[in-house]
Amino acid sequence: MKDNFRKYLVEFIGTFFLVFTVASAVLLGGSSVIAPISIGFALMVCVYAGGHISGGHYNPAVSLAAAIRGALEWKQVIPYWVFQCLGAACAAFTVAQFTALPAVEACPFTLCQVITGEFLFTFLLCWVVLEVATCKGTEGNSFYGLAIGSVVVVGAFAAGGIFCHGAFNPAVAAGLGFIHAAGWACAGVTALVNLVAAIVAGCVFKFVNAE
Amino acid sequence: MKDNFRKYLVEFIGTFFLVFTVASAVLLGGSSVIAPISIGFALMVCVYAGGHISGGHYNPAVSLAAAIRGALEWKQVIPYWVFQCLGAACAAFTVAQFTALPAVEACPFTLCQVITGEFLFTFLLCWVVLEVATCKGTEGNSFYGLAIGSVVVVGAFAAGGIFCHGAFNPAVAAGLGFIHAAGWACAGVTALVNLVAAIVAGCVFKFVNAE
Amino acid sequence: MKDNFRKYLVEFIGTFFLVFTVASAVLLGGSSVIAPISIGFALMVCVYAGGHISGGHYNPAVSLAAAIRGALEWKQVIPYWVFQCLGAACAAFTVAQFTALPAVEACPFTLCQVITGEFLFTFLLCWVVLEVATCKGTEGNSFYGLAIGSVVVVGAFAAGGIFCHGAFNPAVAAGLGFIHAAGWACAGVTALVNLVAAIVAGCVFKFVNAE
Amino acid sequence: MKDNFRKYLVEFIGTFFLVFTVASAVLLGGSSVIAPISIGFALMVCVYAGGHISGGHYNPAVSLAAAIRGALEWKQVIPYWVFQCLGAACAAFTVAQFTALPAVEACPFTLCQVITGEFLFTFLLCWVVLEVATCKGTEGNSFYGLAIGSVVVVGAFAAGGIFCHGAFNPAVAAGLGFIHAAGWACAGVTALVNLVAAIVAGCVFKFVNAE
Repeated sequence: MKDNFRKYLVEFIGTFFLVFTVASAVLLGGSSVIAPISIGFALMVCVYAGGHISGGHYNPAVSLAAAIRGALEWKQVIPYWVFQCLGAACAAFTVAQFTALPAVEACPFTLCQVITGEFLFTFLLCWVVLEVATCKGTEGNSFYGLAIGSVVVVGAFAAGGIFCHGAFNPAVAAGLGFIHAAGWACAGVTALVNLVAAIVAGCVFKFVNAE
Repeated sequence: MKDNFRKYLVEFIGTFFLVFTVASAVLLGGSSVIAPISIGFALMVCVYAGGHISGGHYNPAVSLAAAIRGALEWKQVIPYWVFQCLGAACAAFTVAQFTALPAVEACPFTLCQVITGEFLFTFLLCWVVLEVATCKGTEGNSFYGLAIGSVVVVGAFAAGGIFCHGAFNPAVAAGLGFIHAAGWACAGVTALVNLVAAIVAGCVFKFVNAE
Repeated sequence: MKDNFRKYLVEFIGTFFLVFTVASAVLLGGSSVIAPISIGFALMVCVYAGGHISGGHYNPAVSLAAAIRGALEWKQVIPYWVFQCLGAACAAFTVAQFTALPAVEACPFTLCQVITGEFLFTFLLCWVVLEVATCKGTEGNSFYGLAIGSVVVVGAFAAGGIFCHGAFNPAVAAGLGFIHAAGWACAGVTALVNLVAAIVAGCVFKFVNAE
Repeated sequence: MKDNFRKYLVEFIGTFFLVFTVASAVLLGGSSVIAPISIGFALMVCVYAGGHISGGHYNPAVSLAAAIRGALEWKQVIPYWVFQCLGAACAAFTVAQFTALPAVEACPFTLCQVITGEFLFTFLLCWVVLEVATCKGTEGNSFYGLAIGSVVVVGAFAAGGIFCHGAFNPAVAAGLGFIHAAGWACAGVTALVNLVAAIVAGCVFKFVNAE
């Protein structure tokens, strides 16, 4: 029980700081040119700090992919999701205290764009997590956090703001909903696509690493 | 057979995401200042994820250099090239769905510039791959993906757009052709120079690491 | 005695270069877009160089958290603080030789903003240090400097200049006071919040890593 | 003999690419905001690739510090210097082929500024090299290239263009002279300060790591 709560707390903390960084960039306009790097590094830092305790998912899609791959017990998926979304909500509300929220705008992306961008980079994120953090062929490496965080750097640069909001993470999508950076319909579609991508990533991982 | 197909699939995925990032930066104008970093990180991420399965080349020139060095069977070179180019083509066509392709412009670089830029950094890329990923003196390291991806950061900064299109990779050159960012003649010269650089890198590697 | 002095000298050197980088960015206006990256990398470099000698704190809050966690003898805390602040003062005065100091402005942040920004990222910094540099679960890793330095990249981006001065470090806060970038009241509040965050980080570390 | 020549060739290649990146940034105006990152990464890449062969100095000051520390035979210092300067000269002349060289301007920095900036960061660079690449306490790490290259990122940001030309390396200083980016008097002072900093770094290393 207490062992589990430790993991949940770590997932809460990591998702909090990830979504705080996203929300600060979106609402308070931190230097936007390096926003992708900062957001990716926020994930990297939390993966390195908490990975050895909770697995360092901070992302319901990653937890789903980890369960499919057998790296997380299925009964842990829902509590992980709950604490990840709690962390996202707390971060969003914290940042929102310091500014007036904008009116929610219509989604600037087509459905096809959102599906393309969110699917591709959530797939890449989940597949990379499984390859670098749960796989015999890369056991004991020191690069797992760098690789995982950098997927978000790349996705935020190559798809974020172009194809989609660049969440690649249902908890981040929820955070964007809380701060009015995305409408709830758009956030919901994003989250759904993220989960589908996680399932595909889990299956691709099983195929390319089978023996 | 299935073992080989796993490797080909990984090469396809990695090259897809590398070229997707390049094409998104070129066509859709992602924040261009950090484009070199994002493109290099895309390669890094895929090297870390797939390196233990396929070697993580994502680049026909690197596969050629690996074959010269004895790190890839010669009979695998052609299938690797095919799946790398397939990945590049799929990425280029995916990005192209979301925008009108520009008219192909005349190559803005002189032949001498293209040869200089593409030769130097493709040489560096292939030599670095051989030194950090196939060499006893650096065995078991955790930095191979960072080193390999960062060559592209450096080359894209110091030569890309100045001397040449900054492909350093025949599959990327083909991708630039598909999205009209380079004429086919220019892409062809680029690819050819890339392969020559790979041969030189393989020989230099053998010389400086002999015995 | 001499053994201790070696550690103090390393803490002096590391804090000197960290605060030099901060002061140069603030006073002499180095290319500001990548200032968060440069400042975080300054910390990373000094952690990698001196971590095996002194622990590589360069931050009184981190030394306090390390003492709470049992990674630093309590009687070393005060000398560490002294040499860290000396390093900060020397760096501030060095940079100040090369420019006229501005008039001290009123703190542009509310107390609530300062507490939020400084608390959150100093907590993250101290917690990350304990997890990646003093913990069995991550022993022998090569990523500790990258993780620690990157917290500062993230914090400087997501909170620095938005919520607070982005010190996350009482020695840096003192340095900002010396160069007139922050009033002494503001620097004092910052330092106090930093130390409180360190205590919380020490306790959270003990909870999530128990046994 | 041949064993030595291998090392010299690696030093030539690494210094070539380091100075090529610097010269391209200075003369051809690559995207200047991330110039410090690209130049530092050029060094990192070459350190990772060639460090296990030649030590990966690419810098006469580092070779001097390594000799003082006992990590390089004294009789190798001069040949290392020669090949490093040859690499720098070749890189400078290569880049210079593609543009008209500017008139040499008077040094925009005071002597005191040049000494401060070049001394501090060359000292840091040499000390970091000794700590992360020649020291028992950090043996077998995977971060040495990242740490060494990042010193140049930090120095180029915090001192380059502010205090000095940001060479931190006599071979780079010579390269700047060749491309008319610095007068020879200025380059000479820079190189001299670099060598003095290397001596101090060697002594500090011996003191803080003694037993």
